[in-house]
Parts: sequence; structure tokens; C-alpha cells
Amino acid sequence: MLSYILIFGLGLMGLAVAFVLTRKIVSIPVDFGAESPEEASRLKQMHKAIADGAMAFLTQEYRYITWFMLGFAIFIAFAINDPSTDANEGIFTAAAFIFGGVISLLAGFIGMRIATEGNVRTATSARNSIADAFKVALNSGAVMGFGLVSLTVIGLLITYLVMAAMLDVPPNILMKVVAGFALGGSMIALFGRVGGGIYTKAADVGADLVGKVEAGIPEDDPRNPAVIADNVGDNVGDVAGMGSDLFGSVAESTAAAMVIGATAFAVSAVLAETDSLTANMYPILISAVGIPISLLTILMVRVRNEQQVAPALKKMLIISSVLMAIAVYPLTVWALPESFVLEGQTVTALQVYLCFVAGLASGLAIGLFTEYYTSHDFKPVRELADSCATGSATNIIFGLALGYKSVGWSIASIAFAIYVPFTLAGMYGVAIAALGMLGTLVVGLAIDAYGPVSDNAGGIAEMAEMGETIRDRTDVLDAAGNTTAAIGKGFAIGSAILTSLALFAAFVTHAMHLDDNFTSLNLLDPMVLTGLFVGTILPFIFSAQTMRSVGAAAFEMIEEVRRQFRNIPGIMEGTGQPDYKRCVAISTRAALREMIAPSVLIIGSPLVVGYLFGIEALAGLLIGSLLVGGGLAISSSNSGGAWDNAKKYIEKGHLGGKGTEAHKAAVVGDTVGDPLKDTSGPSLNILIKLMAILSLVFVPFFVEHGGVLTRLIN
Amino acid sequence: MLSYILIFGLGLMGLAVAFVLTRKIVSIPVDFGAESPEEASRLKQMHKAIADGAMAFLTQEYRYITWFMLGFAIFIAFAINDPSTDANEGIFTAAAFIFGGVISLLAGFIGMRIATEGNVRTATSARNSIADAFKVALNSGAVMGFGLVSLTVIGLLITYLVMAAMLDVPPNILMKVVAGFALGGSMIALFGRVGGGIYTKAADVGADLVGKVEAGIPEDDPRNPAVIADNVGDNVGDVAGMGSDLFGSVAESTAAAMVIGATAFAVSAVLAETDSLTANMYPILISAVGIPISLLTILMVRVRNEQQVAPALKKMLIISSVLMAIAVYPLTVWALPESFVLEGQTVTALQVYLCFVAGLASGLAIGLFTEYYTSHDFKPVRELADSCATGSATNIIFGLALGYKSVGWSIASIAFAIYVPFTLAGMYGVAIAALGMLGTLVVGLAIDAYGPVSDNAGGIAEMAEMGETIRDRTDVLDAAGNTTAAIGKGFAIGSAILTSLALFAAFVTHAMHLDDNFTSLNLLDPMVLTGLFVGTILPFIFSAQTMRSVGAAAFEMIEEVRRQFRNIPGIMEGTGQPDYKRCVAISTRAALREMIAPSVLIIGSPLVVGYLFGIEALAGLLIGSLLVGGGLAISSSNSGGAWDNAKKYIEKGHLGGKGTEAHKAAVVGDTVGDPLKDTSGPSLNILIKLMAILSLVFVPFFVEHGGVLTRLIN
Repeated sequence: MLSYILIFGLGLMGLAVAFVLTRKIVSIPVDFGAESPEEASRLKQMHKAIADGAMAFLTQEYRYITWFMLGFAIFIAFAINDPSTDANEGIFTAAAFIFGGVISLLAGFIGMRIATEGNVRTATSARNSIADAFKVALNSGAVMGFGLVSLTVIGLLITYLVMAAMLDVPPNILMKVVAGFALGGSMIALFGRVGGGIYTKAADVGADLVGKVEAGIPEDDPRNPAVIADNVGDNVGDVAGMGSDLFGSVAESTAAAMVIGATAFAVSAVLAETDSLTANMYPILISAVGIPISLLTILMVRVRNEQQVAPALKKMLIISSVLMAIAVYPLTVWALPESFVLEGQTVTALQVYLCFVAGLASGLAIGLFTEYYTSHDFKPVRELADSCATGSATNIIFGLALGYKSVGWSIASIAFAIYVPFTLAGMYGVAIAALGMLGTLVVGLAIDAYGPVSDNAGGIAEMAEMGETIRDRTDVLDAAGNTTAAIGKGFAIGSAILTSLALFAAFVTHAMHLDDNFTSLNLLDPMVLTGLFVGTILPFIFSAQTMRSVGAAAFEMIEEVRRQFRNIPGIMEGTGQPDYKRCVAISTRAALREMIAPSVLIIGSPLVVGYLFGIEALAGLLIGSLLVGGGLAISSSNSGGAWDNAKKYIEKGHLGGKGTEAHKAAVVGDTVGDPLKDTSGPSLNILIKLMAILSLVFVPFFVEHGGVLTRLIN
Repeated sequence: MLSYILIFGLGLMGLAVAFVLTRKIVSIPVDFGAESPEEASRLKQMHKAIADGAMAFLTQEYRYITWFMLGFAIFIAFAINDPSTDANEGIFTAAAFIFGGVISLLAGFIGMRIATEGNVRTATSARNSIADAFKVALNSGAVMGFGLVSLTVIGLLITYLVMAAMLDVPPNILMKVVAGFALGGSMIALFGRVGGGIYTKAADVGADLVGKVEAGIPEDDPRNPAVIADNVGDNVGDVAGMGSDLFGSVAESTAAAMVIGATAFAVSAVLAETDSLTANMYPILISAVGIPISLLTILMVRVRNEQQVAPALKKMLIISSVLMAIAVYPLTVWALPESFVLEGQTVTALQVYLCFVAGLASGLAIGLFTEYYTSHDFKPVRELADSCATGSATNIIFGLALGYKSVGWSIASIAFAIYVPFTLAGMYGVAIAALGMLGTLVVGLAIDAYGPVSDNAGGIAEMAEMGETIRDRTDVLDAAGNTTAAIGKGFAIGSAILTSLALFAAFVTHAMHLDDNFTSLNLLDPMVLTGLFVGTILPFIFSAQTMRSVGAAAFEMIEEVRRQFRNIPGIMEGTGQPDYKRCVAISTRAALREMIAPSVLIIGSPLVVGYLFGIEALAGLLIGSLLVGGGLAISSSNSGGAWDNAKKYIEKGHLGGKGTEAHKAAVVGDTVGDPLKDTSGPSLNILIKLMAILSLVFVPFFVEHGGVLTRLIN
């Protein structure tokens, strides 16, 4: 009982914080401190254009999503029918699925709304001081962080309580119904990440190639018709997309831990029923405790001048990690029995706590390794910048090599966060490690969303012609956001791999429970082995699809911008008004169209393979795509980040600075890196998680109907 | 007994064919048909420079290799001691290892020598007719093909007979000693592929970046000091390197099939002893039968004009595949018992034959898919060429996406060649499928080696100023070689994956035989799972190392070429003599230096992981790196091939042709692709095979001493 109150209480507290911060932000007028009525009107116009554009994309995307979600829910309701129980599991799973989807949409919507309000106010507050602007940007991000995590824990608890009241099934099946909630969230994340990723890079690449390269006008110049679409893209891709991705991670790793833990806690004879319930809530409690810890962290950090911006963000991550490590210890001792039996192994609460710490530490390590490989404060990016001296080809070769090399330490950290928890507490431990990696999520999200808000603020300052000082200040904020964005991506990938693995374990455990013929997962089984190889194909195809989609969408944008430059009189002199809306519409349409093929691939592959070839083949498929997807995601993301910062390093005046051949080579690298780091790389997170949660939820379907073709052959 | 005679007979026949072809080639004078004494002297000079350069590299490389091989042999002799037998397995394995290494070196040496004789004679024969030139180039390649395969089958048979006579051990242990021969060959392949790959691309990239880009002189211009090194590179990389790679594949998949099959044939009660011996020889017999089949194929193909060159090469592959499929059926029925028991499963000879056909068909499929994705006769490369219109960044993005996408069908073909044989005849079937994929090896090697010979012929024609007609004719030969080179790479990767898998199975089978605690390979074992993840790191790191090595070596070459342009008077006017030897020395030194780190990685990883963490972890490591390495090798190779041909497509006049912005963008793509397709991609073949054969040979070591750290923790 106390655990429920705690989760609800902390969740509501988080929502309250988000509400207060929102009020604080929107209380600043859009044209705060404008020096002229013209500037005020420009500010209002830009703010409206970006907010409207973002809303236009979201409402259109949500319309498609609604139909798809309803259709898929019906499929779930009919397809899933656990043969071992009478309860109609499918309908309840479908309900949890819809609920998870709605909560995820809501979280994305809130985050994006506040980001499109915070961006202009960050720009206007920058006139006062960098400290004020930093606060607005960070608070905008924090609204997203608090709102999302709070909604997740409350949503998970409600789903659990409602299902527990209505379903009379063993706890592990109950938990699997709850996993429907996570599936709903992840499905939204698919559209958010892939659609958003294509949107933002199509606009970005399109705007740059015509504006900067062909017409020779600077970035964020209001004469560029694609400039609003570019700014909208930051919000729909980097805020809403990333938010739904991490919402999925939390919900999924919680569901995985609950499914694996449920049986153990239920059968542990030493536990009274109430203790077992509290133990079941432990995974949700971890995320809930993150809320007050993050509040404390954010209150502790202050920025006084430009030099303090970047260190402040990094300090927040480290402080919140330390606080979490301290706070989760008493929580674990309280919530879990001193020792319990899990998969035949005796596990102590202390061991589970160590799993949490392993995940937390590994997440931090990945973040720092990512920084090392992508920040121009360190050797790798500086060497990459040097390679621009011999042209774009060497820059590309060295950038690809850098990304490949960076896979080493990151995957080694993840391997550590698999081996130690697995040895200490089986796959339950791995799920807890995933939650550990996501332990600092509120702060992580705040920092992540801070980035695109600052980036937008810079764009608005430029477009509204607010002057050098303000632009310089927003540039400082933006630069700090770039490094933390790379760190955030490291966290996102790391937690996605652990989450996927925990889901995989839950899938296998559950399948073995339902299917008596399925007793082991032998690497030397023909089906498993073939599945492993076929699984390796998916991340490659998926990356190819998303990269080509960005290209195709960018081409359309290029055509439209060229057309406007040709046909709108006075556009280059600033007297003609560019048609921003058409560019927004093109990005929107292209993103929605291009996300169909990759979505079909991700959703279809596990369902088709499980149906035709059975559970062993599906298990192989999941691990194969996880192994390749993880490395590919890390290398894509880090190559892209490094190219971006190598360009910035040269623009700071190294190797001759802007306008040199070296700079041109660096721009090529940066353009290549854009779809890698912001579309295909992060989308791979979704691939590896969504396929695993789909498999888990559909276990009863595969057990009952799966392996059609295999049975036919034998 | 008959099987021994057959193998020896066919092997000697192959050597005789190679000898006759060699005589035929060298009987043509180097300055054949020279139109002036100057031309004759230039021809002699170029021929000597290339042959000497190649020899210089090979002798230096061989010197290092000799010491390394001796050291490693001593390590083998001491480290391997099968606890289940009294026989001193280690010393015999070490002897087989040395013998395999010597045979591999010999095969590489022969191939390279004849290639450096055939290149100049191809150029001079082109004055007569394209048919004559084609014949010389193809015959040069055929010497390599016949010589290598003959040496392999004879070497394997001798090793087997000597070991069988000297060792009184069960057949599976005997076969594992024979596997030492394959390890020796593979170790040479490591140095050949990695060292040769770095050599050839360092020279190529270095020569191009200064010569073509900076100085504006054409390719293969004799004024470029790096031009000889570039031509030497084709021989040491594409001939000797590729040859040793495929030598390894044949020896390894034969060894794997023999290890797995040995126990089955020995215990099959229905078999008389002599039948069991013939059955043991079956894997070697397959390769031996390929020798007369290939001779027949080569005799059947004739080229009369330019249009027939490319189809002739493809026709050879298809004819030899069909002939092999026919010939191996009676061979299988004769050599194998009608049915036998393998891992508890009854297997018929017909089923084994079907495994062979599955491998053969899958190899051909991979070849054709590779052609589809890398030839400019098809849509993918034409689209890639179109993407050059918007600059080098889009060319790189689409090229990477193309490579990723091409992984799909190739890996699907491999998955087919795993699933069908595995289901029909267990891992023995997979090993036979690997041999099926290598069934057309003589022809494959002939075609592969034909490419660099033609390429060199073109270079010599240019350098010796032999005129337009000859250059045009060698260009036709070279262009046809480019496509078949891509197909050949597809075969090499496909067979490497199957070989590695078969070796893996032999490794696991043998380990289970020796270690009673090791009974299953569960995907959900912490050690296996962690090993899988750590394994995925290796191909990424290895690719990064080899790509950076090319970059580093190319930088040195660039410096030297610039220095010579500055300091040698009259070099640009053609009156000063460039110092070719210095450039050859730089490439040699750089290749030998840069191959150390990747070699340590490949050899060290399985040994260290097996020693510290035990067999389960090592098994995970092997599969993890195989899964990632396969996809990465295919995508690297095909991206590179596609960029190369997109450039050629534009140079034919599309998109404006040479000198346009689109062409410049295409050149960037081609330069990026060079190290991918000729260094890091093919080197990954070695990574996945060598780690597996190392693990197999060292099984007794791991069983006795392995898992030190794991035991310490538990």
C-alpha cells in the first residue's frame, strides 16, 4: 500500500513541478524586452510559425497514429490468448496498449509544446543575462523530464492496479498484460523517432544545401523558406522523438523487470503477500525516486557566466547519479526481501542494489566515452579535424573509423552492465541495471531537451534580427547543448540495449513457461543460428531505409526552396515573404510517407518470423539484430557527432577557419553525419527495443500459432 | 587407397597445368612486338621495377613471418596437450602448422611471380589482338588458381597421411592435428590480406591524391614516383593477399568437415575401415575434383572481340558451377556410405550432396547479388551516380545506404546455406556447403587474379607509352575484371562466413568431447551472452584500425611524392628520373608496421578471452564477431565497389562526365571506398576465420588452462 502511495505521491509531485515551471516560463511575454515594435512583431511571428509548424506535424502524425493504434489494438485483442488461463488476456493487453500509447503521446505533446514556448523566451531572456536564458532553456527541458517520468510511473501503476483488480491470473501473466502499456509507448516512439528524425534532417539538409551552399546566405536566415521547417524539426525530432524513445525505455525495462520478478516474488515462501506486492513495485519505485532527486539536483545548479554553462550540465548528470546511488540503497532494502529465490538462485537485496549501481555507473561511463569521442576538447575530434586538410575523402574515412573505434569502450561498458548483474541476479538484475542507466532520466531529459530549445533560440535571435550579443549568448548555450546531446545519445543507446536484453529474457522465460517443447535456447540449434544471421540484416536494411529517406525528403525540400527563390519576387532582398508553410508541409508529408517502410520492417519482422518459423528462430532474430544494431547505433551516432564538432573546431579558426578547403571538407563530413546521428542511429534504439517488446507481448500468439512453416517442412 | 591416388593424381595434374601455362606465358618475350628500342627498354624497365618491388615486399614480409611462425609454432607445441591422450599432440600440430604456412607462402609466391610476368605480356600481346591479351591475363590467373588448389589438396593429404602414420589417437583428434595445417595457412593469410591490403591502398590513395589531384597528371603517369608502388600493390594485395585468404578458406572448411565427420565415420558400424577412410577424404576430394572441371571450363571459353570479354568471365563461373554440381554427385555416392549416423541423426549421402549444392547455389547467388549492387549496368549504382549531382555528401550517404542494403540478400543467401545443410546434415553439412561455395575456386581465383594482371597491363601500357589502341584494349580487360572482382569478393566473404561457422561447430564439438562440464551452449548463459557482446566490438575496432592504417600510410606516401616533385629537377618535364624505389620502400615499411596492431587484436582476442574467461565466453566471442563481421564486410565491400563504378559511369559521359562537380563528388566516394573495399572489408574475412580456427586448434589448451579469471571470481 505504502508503495502505491509513494509512487502516486512522487508522480504527482513531478507533475506539480512541471506545472510550476511551465507557468514560470509562459509568464514571460513572447516579446519580452523587445527594443522596437518591429522586433516584437518579428518575435511573435517566428514563435507562431514554429509552434504552428510543430503542431501541424504533430496533429497530422497523431491522426495517422490513432488509426494505426486502434487497428493494432484490435489485432492484439484477437491474436493474444494465453492457452493456460481462461482470462481473455488479449483484450486487456490491448487496453493497456492503448493507454500506454495515449500517455506517450501526451508526454511528447507536453514536451514539444513547452519547447516551442521556451525557445523564444530563451532568446528574449538572453538580453538580460546568460544566466536568465540558461534558466529558461533548462526549465523548458525540465518540464519535459518531470512530466514524462511522472506520467510513466503513474501510468504504469494505474495499469497494474486496474489489471490486478480485473484479471485473476498468475502474477507473471498479469505483468505481461502490463507490458502492453510499454508496447503502446514504444509504438509511439517508433513514429516519433523515425518520423521526427526524417523530418528534422530533411529540413536541415535541404535548408543547408540550397541556402548555405547555393544561395550563400547564412544559417537561420529568414529569407530561406526552409528555415522555419528546420527549426520545427528540432522540436519534433530532438524533443518529441527523443522523449517518446526514453519513455519507451523506462516503461519497457520496468515491464521486463516486473515480468521476470513476478514469479520469483510470488513463490518465495518467505514473503508475506504485502511484501510481495511491494517487491513487485520496486522497478517503478526506482523511477519514482528519481523525481525528487532530480528536483534537488536542478535546484543545486546555478550558472553565473558563459564559462559555467557546459560544466553545469555535466555537473548535473554527475550529482544526480551520486544522489540516486545513495537514495536507492534504502529503497532497495525496504522494498525487496532480504533474500529471495530467482530462477533457482538465491538473490539478496544488496545484490539487486549492486545491479542498479552497475547500470548507473555504466551509463555514466558510456556518457563520458561518448564525450571523449565527440567533443573537440579531446584528441579524436582534433585528429579528425586535421584529416580535413587532405580533403573530404580522408575526413570521411577517419570519421567512419572514429565511429567504429568508439564502439569498443561503449559496448565494453554495456558488457560489464550485462555480466555483473546477470551473475548477481540473473536477467532480473539486467532489467534493474537498465533502470539504473535510466535512473537519472529526469535530469538527462532536461539536459537533452535543453539543447534543441537553445538551438531554436539561436535561430529565432537570428531570424528576428536581435543583434550580435544575444546571438553570441544563445550560441554559448547551444554549444554546451551539443556535447550533452551526444552524451544523452550514449545513455539512450546503452539503456536501449540493456532494456532490449531484459525484454528478451522476459520473452524467453514466458515462452518456456507456456510452451513445454521450448526448454533451452541452444546457440547450435539450426533455427536459432539461422535466426541470428537473418537478424543481423535488419539493422542494416533499417539504417539504409532511414538514410535514403532523409535523402529523398531533402531532395524535395531542395526543389521547393529553389522554386521559391526563382518565383517569389524580392525574396532575396528581404522584401518578398517566403512561403514557410509550404516547406513545413513538405517536411511533414515526406516524414509521414517515409516512415511507413521502416515501420513495416520493424513491426512485421518479428511477427512474421515468429509466425512462420517459431520461437527459436524469433529468439535468434532478436539477438542477431540487437548485436548488430547496438554497434551500428553507437558508431553512427559518434561518427556524426564527431564530424559536427570537427567542423565547429575548424570554424573556431583552426586549420585556417571558415572558407578554407579544410572547412569545406568538414562541411561534407557534417552533412554526411546528420542523418547518421539524428535519424538512422537513434532510430536503431527503437528497432532493438520494439522488436523485443513485441515478441514478449505476442508470446501466447507464437506459442499457439507460431512455426507454421517449420511444422510444414518437418 | 583409391581416394589417395585420386587426390594426388588430380593435384599433380593441376600443378602440371600450372607449369604448362607458366611456360606458355614466359615464352613470350617481355618486349614482344615493341615498335622501337626505346619502347622495348621502357617495357623491360617497368616490368623489372614492378617485379622487383613485389619481390622486395614479399621477401621482407616473409622474413618477419618466418620468425613469427616459428615463435608461434613453439607456443603451439607447448600449449596444446590433449589430456585425453598420451600422444604429444602439440608438437605434431606445430609441425602441421609450419607445413601449412610454407604451402600458403609458396602458393602466394607462385601467384605473385606469375602475375608480375603476365602483366607486361598482357600489355604487349594486346598489340596483336584483344583475344591474345585476354588469354595471357587469364592464363596468369589460372596458374594461381591451379597452383593454389593443387598445393592445398596435396598438402592436406600429406599432412593427414603423415599424422595418421605417426599418431595413435582417435580420428577426431587426428583431424584436429591436421587442422594445424589450416591454421598455418590462415596465419599467412592474415599477413597477406592485412599487410597487402594496406600496401596497395596506401600506394593507390597516396599516388592519386598528389598525382591526380595536386599535380594534375593522369593515372599511371611514369612521372609520378608512387606509380610503381601502386602497380606493385595490385600484385601483393589483390593477388598474393586474396590467394592466401582463399587458401585458408579451403584448408579450414576441409579441416572443419574432417574434424566433425571423423567421429561419425569411425563409429558408424556399417562401415568397413577402408570405406571410413574414403569418407574421411571426401572434403579433400571435392576440391580435387574441381581441378579437372576447371580445366575443362577454361578450355571451353574463347574470346573473339571486346564485347565478349565480360560475358566470358561470367560464363566461366556459371559453367564451372554446373559442371561441379554434376561431377560431385557420383563422387559423393562413391566416397560416402549410403547413410551414416551423425550427432545422433541419420544422414544419407544424397543429403550431403544437397548440402554441397546449397553452398554452390548460394555462392553463385551472392555473386550475382554483388554484381547487381556494384555494377553500373543496374539501378543501384546508377542512382548512386545521380546522387553525385548534389555533391559528395549525398554520394557518401547514398553509398553507405547502398552497402547496408546489399547486406540483405547476401546474408539471406548465407542463411539459406546454413539452414538447409544444418537441417540435412548438421554442422558437417555446413562445412560441406562451405566447400560447395568454394567448389569453383580454381576458376574463381583465375578470374580474380586476371583482374590485377589486366590492371597492371594497363598501367604498363601507359607508363611505357605504348599508344591509344593498346591502352583501350587493356581498359576493356580491366573493366571486365572490376565486376568479376566484386563477384569474387562476394564468394570470399560468403565462404568465409560458412567456413567460420563450420570451424566454430568443430570447436564446440571438440570442446564438449574434452570437457565434461561443457555440455550446452545456452544463449542465456551470462558468459556466452557477454562474450557475444564483446565479440561485436572486434570487427568494428579491426575495421577502424585497418582504415586508419591506410590513411596513415597514405600520408607518408603523399609527403614523399611531394618531396620528390620539389627536389628532383626536371621530374615534371620527364627529364628527371623519379625515385620509385623509395616509394616502394615506404609502402613496404608502412604495411609491415601497420599490420602489427590488427594482427595482435585477431590472434590475441580469442586466446586471451579463452584463457581468462573460458570456453563459453570464447564461443560467444566468436559468434558475436562473426555476426557483425559478416555484415560489415559485405557492406564495406559493396559500398566501395559501387562508388568505384559510379565514378566510372560518370566518366563514361553521364551527368556531364569528367571534370564536372558531379565527377569530383564521385571521386570523393571512390577514394572513401578504396580502403573499405580493398583493405578493411576483405580483412574481415580473415578475422572471422582465423579466430575460429585458432579456437579449434587451442581447444585442449582452453580446456586445461582456460577460465582462470572466472574460476577466481566464483
